[in-house]
Amino acid sequence: MTLELLSSQKSFGGWHNRYRHHSAILNCDMLFAVYLPPQAEEGARLPVLYWLSGLTCTDENFMQKAGAQRLAAELGLVLVAPDTSPRGEGVPGDPDGAWDFGLGAGFYLNATQEPWVQHYRMHDYVVHELPALIEARFPVSDRRGVSGHSMGGHGALVCALRNPGRYRSLSAFAPIVNPSASPWGEKAFSRYLGEDRETWKEWDACALLAGARERLPILVDQGDADGFLADQLKPEALQAAAMAAGHPLTLRLQPGYDHSYYFIASFIDDHLRHHAQALGL
Amino acid sequence: MTLELLSSQKSFGGWHNRYRHHSAILNCDMLFAVYLPPQAEEGARLPVLYWLSGLTCTDENFMQKAGAQRLAAELGLVLVAPDTSPRGEGVPGDPDGAWDFGLGAGFYLNATQEPWVQHYRMHDYVVHELPALIEARFPVSDRRGVSGHSMGGHGALVCALRNPGRYRSLSAFAPIVNPSASPWGEKAFSRYLGEDRETWKEWDACALLAGARERLPILVDQGDADGFLADQLKPEALQAAAMAAGHPLTLRLQPGYDHSYYFIASFIDDHLRHHAQALGL
Repeated sequence: MTLELLSSQKSFGGWHNRYRHHSAILNCDMLFAVYLPPQAEEGARLPVLYWLSGLTCTDENFMQKAGAQRLAAELGLVLVAPDTSPRGEGVPGDPDGAWDFGLGAGFYLNATQEPWVQHYRMHDYVVHELPALIEARFPVSDRRGVSGHSMGGHGALVCALRNPGRYRSLSAFAPIVNPSASPWGEKAFSRYLGEDRETWKEWDACALLAGARERLPILVDQGDADGFLADQLKPEALQAAAMAAGHPLTLRLQPGYDHSYYFIASFIDDHLRHHAQALGL
Repeated sequence: MTLELLSSQKSFGGWHNRYRHHSAILNCDMLFAVYLPPQAEEGARLPVLYWLSGLTCTDENFMQKAGAQRLAAELGLVLVAPDTSPRGEGVPGDPDGAWDFGLGAGFYLNATQEPWVQHYRMHDYVVHELPALIEARFPVSDRRGVSGHSMGGHGALVCALRNPGRYRSLSAFAPIVNPSASPWGEKAFSRYLGEDRETWKEWDACALLAGARERLPILVDQGDADGFLADQLKPEALQAAAMAAGHPLTLRLQPGYDHSYYFIASFIDDHLRHHAQALGL
């Protein structure tokens, strides 16, 4: 596994590094970012929080705008931010050039339909291939947490709920909780997975909660001034599903906050502490 | 004075607002950003920290990337981020389209040469016109601090040193301390101010320190892995000038840090506390 270091920038006593590697699962080269807190130089194997970004993002948005490094440095928590889709020559994007499907919009699932099936397997990439690489090459333990925003909040919920035992902590900001019933999700799922809506349930947090074999407590923050709240995000559906399943969910509706990184930055410390506690920090 | 609110986003219990207004001094419309901490809704008149950004930036870079709102919200400090040059139809840029002169590169001075003299008067804009607007329209006091990065660090130093009594606190990140002897400064000054280098001294922090009538303590952070350190920034010149003038300067060379906002974010809290103390918070 060749790992090419693209840049290295000191941040809060640790390092924000960007890498390129070839992903066998995605069948293309991928970039990702790692924040290594100062404790990474002391030999201990640190836990990792995987951050899954939303539509149109890359590895950069979270690292530049969330302000997570300050507390991660204090806690000794490694942060990993993958890209949001496969990229590069030969990777098909939306035929109409839309921003909510294809490039920058992998939806953290494994596509089953042509032509997406050759590259769009972001679930297996973020759950298996990338952590294997991280755990082989960095001073980290197998204690993993996952969080994300919007499409990435959906990704965090689905990756954790589909893979009991794989993550010790879970949270999300403004997640698409019920993509089967949201315009973004319906567009993406009908193309990546086909028209059989039964298959969509395996990638829908609300549907997965009903059969969840593990009761990983979920922290969700949602701004009530988020322009996508009513049509796309629908946190009440997650609350209903969690209640029906007896799943521990803390859903906080944050008055006045929108869908941006100004919202995420305002509450990222609470999420990092939620993860740190479960990860044994 | 018409002030058009372009956007308003909640951030750490306060508000990040962007505005457009017509600048009489710059002879064009300008955008700026204000962070109003939660205390702004409580009626007290709060002090203001003006942040001057570096080459190519707008009002957005600092607000998105520095992570300053968290502590500003705690302290009750208003943050104001102007743009870095006049903009818009009729405002000339670099004839070769370069990024280090003209648009995004106003250098916080008052140009004297054609064709720049019609619009490029960023000193008077950030020192007088913008604060007058801020103090008329927002719940702020006349307690002002100024800080900035790179070209904006030069701006902060020069604005404070030229205007004794106007600011109560001063700091800078990786400032161009001696623009008369830096390639960026020489290019900008020769065009904005003409070839008579005597006139440049009025816009050069190292030259101004010699005659400073006020001993405002200066905090400067500088990364020692900053790619611009040796050619453009030369903090040792500021140290020599401060020492010769008996001016209080705390210059911290930060090992491993570069010129980016990852560096700024790592030390912004120290700067906010430096300002807060002098501003009576």
